[in-house]
Amino acid sequence: MERVGDVGEDALVARIAARLGPPPADEVWSGDDAAVLAPTERSLVFTTDLLIERVDFELAWATPRDVGWKALAASASDVAAMGGRPRHAVVALCLGSEAETAFVDELLSGLLEAGARWGISLAGGDLSRGPVVVVCVAMLGATATTGPILRSSARVGDAICVTGSLGGAAAGLQALTAPPRRGTSGSGALARLVARQLRPAARVEQGATLASLGVTSMIDLSDGLAADLARLLAASEVGCDVDPARVPIDPDLMEAVGAGELQAADPLRLALAGGEDFELLFTIEETRVPAVRSALEESGCAVTQIGVVTSGVRRVGDEDLETWRQRGWDHFRGR
Amino acid sequence: MERVGDVGEDALVARIAARLGPPPADEVWSGDDAAVLAPTERSLVFTTDLLIERVDFELAWATPRDVGWKALAASASDVAAMGGRPRHAVVALCLGSEAETAFVDELLSGLLEAGARWGISLAGGDLSRGPVVVVCVAMLGATATTGPILRSSARVGDAICVTGSLGGAAAGLQALTAPPRRGTSGSGALARLVARQLRPAARVEQGATLASLGVTSMIDLSDGLAADLARLLAASEVGCDVDPARVPIDPDLMEAVGAGELQAADPLRLALAGGEDFELLFTIEETRVPAVRSALEESGCAVTQIGVVTSGVRRVGDEDLETWRQRGWDHFRGR
Repeated sequence: MERVGDVGEDALVARIAARLGPPPADEVWSGDDAAVLAPTERSLVFTTDLLIERVDFELAWATPRDVGWKALAASASDVAAMGGRPRHAVVALCLGSEAETAFVDELLSGLLEAGARWGISLAGGDLSRGPVVVVCVAMLGATATTGPILRSSARVGDAICVTGSLGGAAAGLQALTAPPRRGTSGSGALARLVARQLRPAARVEQGATLASLGVTSMIDLSDGLAADLARLLAASEVGCDVDPARVPIDPDLMEAVGAGELQAADPLRLALAGGEDFELLFTIEETRVPAVRSALEESGCAVTQIGVVTSGVRRVGDEDLETWRQRGWDHFRGR
Repeated sequence: MERVGDVGEDALVARIAARLGPPPADEVWSGDDAAVLAPTERSLVFTTDLLIERVDFELAWATPRDVGWKALAASASDVAAMGGRPRHAVVALCLGSEAETAFVDELLSGLLEAGARWGISLAGGDLSRGPVVVVCVAMLGATATTGPILRSSARVGDAICVTGSLGGAAAGLQALTAPPRRGTSGSGALARLVARQLRPAARVEQGATLASLGVTSMIDLSDGLAADLARLLAASEVGCDVDPARVPIDPDLMEAVGAGELQAADPLRLALAGGEDFELLFTIEETRVPAVRSALEESGCAVTQIGVVTSGVRRVGDEDLETWRQRGWDHFRGR
């Protein structure tokens, strides 16, 4: 069992660099003070995302490969939510000196697998040690066919839509962490929910497609529908009328609950207040919803209109959006 | 005393965003899923750097303002070492939920002060909580007048030069941490050494100037002259003959040692094996050294030739470079 402390920093960097693959002739990736990337004619999209052991994941239930995948997916989702295409990432990694080199190899495999999935190159990074594992991805992309899609440009009367289905990642977290911690030992549905928590899919293709189809605003669902919708509406200075019956709940969540495998789970609450589904929430002129739906269904991605943008208060059925939002996650309140 | 847990994530983000200043009309900084930046015709320079509490700093001796400054300076130095100009940064920040909002305000002040110093805009970031403070800066810049300056292009016969002076940051660390922990209570020299540790200066102007003057290779001195010179020589597949008597030791270090204020300090060892001076180490055709020296002296920055690139072994006086390097810092070996 080889530990990173046995190998040393330079050898570990070389070991990682060897797996990043050769860059194009006009680029420099790992191995120098910084990466050098070819210029682009389009606007740049630039974001960063931090995953922290014991806060965002536990190594008791997430493999290092899962952690690498998810770290890249979270940033890719942010770029997609701007209507951008992610291109390159640099990754700062903090490990304990007792960490095994196999841990680094596996984490890198997860990063590279997710990168291959969405066409994102790992161009470099930084290594450090510390008391917990920290993975900080910084990602660079470019806007697609149009300018960026902001949160702040929803218009009264627009349809409010989401891609895919919601609540699955939070249900997977519950399966992994709540007693009796069933993990992936349950049915197919439960295993798929766990996979949704551990290996989320960023809507990279869909983000670019939606941008080209004239969506008026967009945000990714990382902290839960209620919280992220509230952010979009606040930025746009508008209200909403959302029909909770139209919120697309993950079918695996319904199946697992129906089979008694997630006993304490409230599906609507997980769909509205649970986070990390990495679906896209967007607004668009209501007449354009059918065209958007058929365009995304070609890529196997459902689109559901859940409500409309209003000039009034923010409501989900009979309740305030704020009530739902307070049931969700806040990094600093820890709930 | 207000804690971040009382305020919540969104309010904290808004508090930070309000201080980042308005972006140009075609850019989006904080407040959306990702920052959007205007394209550049030049190649992009992209890097990341992680500072971890209790590994890279202690809050017993570094203020949050110091930590913010240093985090930005470290990345700026990496961009400068490519001959690039840093332009934008995004910052991922991990705090305990017990952290005070004043801590965040001060850390941001340090980031903004360093940004103002070198013309770098803070364009966004990410907030999380965890067991220790983590500051992860990702920085984006552009190459200056020429292509990037790599580590791998030193040529046999080139002069090996460094900017400024060495050993000061490591001496400052010693003053802060080694008994009797004199901190800044000593003479002017000791206070300047401590400032050099806490508020390092990145050679941003000098990096671009050196690139335009035809340096053949360049690296910044973050892990110590011996370690970083070894990296440059290994990448270029060359040797060196360095004269230890020509290594420019920080005059404040010499003064503090002379005054008996840093009793256990070995100046040459601090200059060769101590890190975080953030000077630039570069190679250049030997006949061009006088021109480079006079160009940089205009900006108040000394240039010293410390040796030459050879095709043979790597030597510092009578010793192997590797011997000196093993006296330096390795993140995973913790020495």
